[in-house]
Amino acid sequence: MSNTKAGYRPQITHAGLSPTHPVTAVDEFNATRQVEVPGESPLTLYVDEREIVTLMTIGAHPEALALGYLRNQRFVERLDQIKSVSVDHHTESVQVTTRDGIEGWDEKLKKRTVTTGCGQGTVFSCTLDNLYTIRLPETRVRQSTIYELLDNISGCNTIYRRSGAVHGCALCEGTRSLMYTEDVGRHNAADAISGYMWLDDISGADKIFYTTGRLTSEIVMKTAHMGIAVLLSRSGVTHMGLELAQELGMTMIARARGKHFMIYHGAENISFDAPPEQRPGRPKPE
Amino acid sequence: MSNTKAGYRPQITHAGLSPTHPVTAVDEFNATRQVEVPGESPLTLYVDEREIVTLMTIGAHPEALALGYLRNQRFVERLDQIKSVSVDHHTESVQVTTRDGIEGWDEKLKKRTVTTGCGQGTVFSCTLDNLYTIRLPETRVRQSTIYELLDNISGCNTIYRRSGAVHGCALCEGTRSLMYTEDVGRHNAADAISGYMWLDDISGADKIFYTTGRLTSEIVMKTAHMGIAVLLSRSGVTHMGLELAQELGMTMIARARGKHFMIYHGAENISFDAPPEQRPGRPKPE
Repeated sequence: MSNTKAGYRPQITHAGLSPTHPVTAVDEFNATRQVEVPGESPLTLYVDEREIVTLMTIGAHPEALALGYLRNQRFVERLDQIKSVSVDHHTESVQVTTRDGIEGWDEKLKKRTVTTGCGQGTVFSCTLDNLYTIRLPETRVRQSTIYELLDNISGCNTIYRRSGAVHGCALCEGTRSLMYTEDVGRHNAADAISGYMWLDDISGADKIFYTTGRLTSEIVMKTAHMGIAVLLSRSGVTHMGLELAQELGMTMIARARGKHFMIYHGAENISFDAPPEQRPGRPKPE
Repeated sequence: MSNTKAGYRPQITHAGLSPTHPVTAVDEFNATRQVEVPGESPLTLYVDEREIVTLMTIGAHPEALALGYLRNQRFVERLDQIKSVSVDHHTESVQVTTRDGIEGWDEKLKKRTVTTGCGQGTVFSCTLDNLYTIRLPETRVRQSTIYELLDNISGCNTIYRRSGAVHGCALCEGTRSLMYTEDVGRHNAADAISGYMWLDDISGADKIFYTTGRLTSEIVMKTAHMGIAVLLSRSGVTHMGLELAQELGMTMIARARGKHFMIYHGAENISFDAPPEQRPGRPKPE
């Protein structure tokens, strides 16, 4: 994780698209309303002129998305292997050029046809091969920090509030969100954060990864690849997401809304320093 | 769509898994609670012993999921091409055997490496090639039907209410849901419905496809492949989903909760026979 040469930055374009489009819709009173919808565009990723995958994305952070995708899929281990990242909207493509090629490229790409999905996007087998070599840092989180963080994050979802239909992800330190990304898929939003972490040389240690989306196996994997030991979600968890978090020793907090949350793994890492005053009725699962 | 021999059924296993798992979690009062989380398991699809894709699924409807996936990806045009569908949980696989093989198999599979995602799973190019040959039936929907249908559907999300973290899809006729499926990905829930429509020889004409999830390009494509002309969602739409609906002439109703909805395309097909009595404040986008 920390092998990146300090200060190294590849050449990158800054070709982010406007995340929303104005459209006309008709409401329940048969009244025409001007509303916004999020963009959803194909972005085909090439590495050294070799086609890897086409991602459907809102397009706001295409360079960070491409970098984070390559990082989280474990195609590229260090940022200094990458010479440039160039987005061309005319061809709906992003060209990543490496300095010395990628070792074992053929083998890595061959395996992609095997494992797909996790409900969300494409996972290549090499992603899984590397997963269990990850050692996450020990961590301690206060309940009061969780509440203050949730409060601070609540205003960040600007695209969602304008257009709905997106998921948000945030890289958090203490009670602050360092960066907040939104995309039509939460996996893209997570990859974009991973890309920015690389570009800005930010370590995952002592961070919290927040998402509005569910904690499936794929989100747990991406969080582990970013070196982050605490996951916090507004939504629920899947069984495989939970099993992976258990194996990786990741603290997993979900259904976090208002004062409510559920810790699915790692409750021993939480300091219960701010219990709510009154015990409310049990909220429904989200 | 209607080329299936009436009454033909391939041999299929009935190997659905229990959709949820009991787990222990800790709430905001540091109290241990017994809760349920949805399953998420890999299911690798083989057709005539050839590996196609691995889907991450809740596993409740593996045979219908496999059939619907093949149908919605346009790998198989008619149900009577399929001899059997056999799920084996030990190997986490589903084996589909055809009667006479699949024409153009190599070409169809070759293209899969090109287009992936739509935010959700894997799309093969042949899916897109066939999309614009679809002619959807003309349709007319009453506002009162939408309200009654939403009311009837509201109790169907049994897995969501137990465990959260799933999306639901329903095949609806008039004010009734004919089948309701839930999965960790809404695309899987949609594919399972497509599979059941094949098995039970149900046409998409005069149906409404309901989903709790967002209307992305992939969901619009799947709905079109099922021959259904009306999409209804509790969530929002993406720009590409909307553009596809416009090109296909699909009526697209989203953000449908309580008495509120927004028609993004096809408002001329809606009879406004039940306008709400009072105009409420504008709800936030979902």
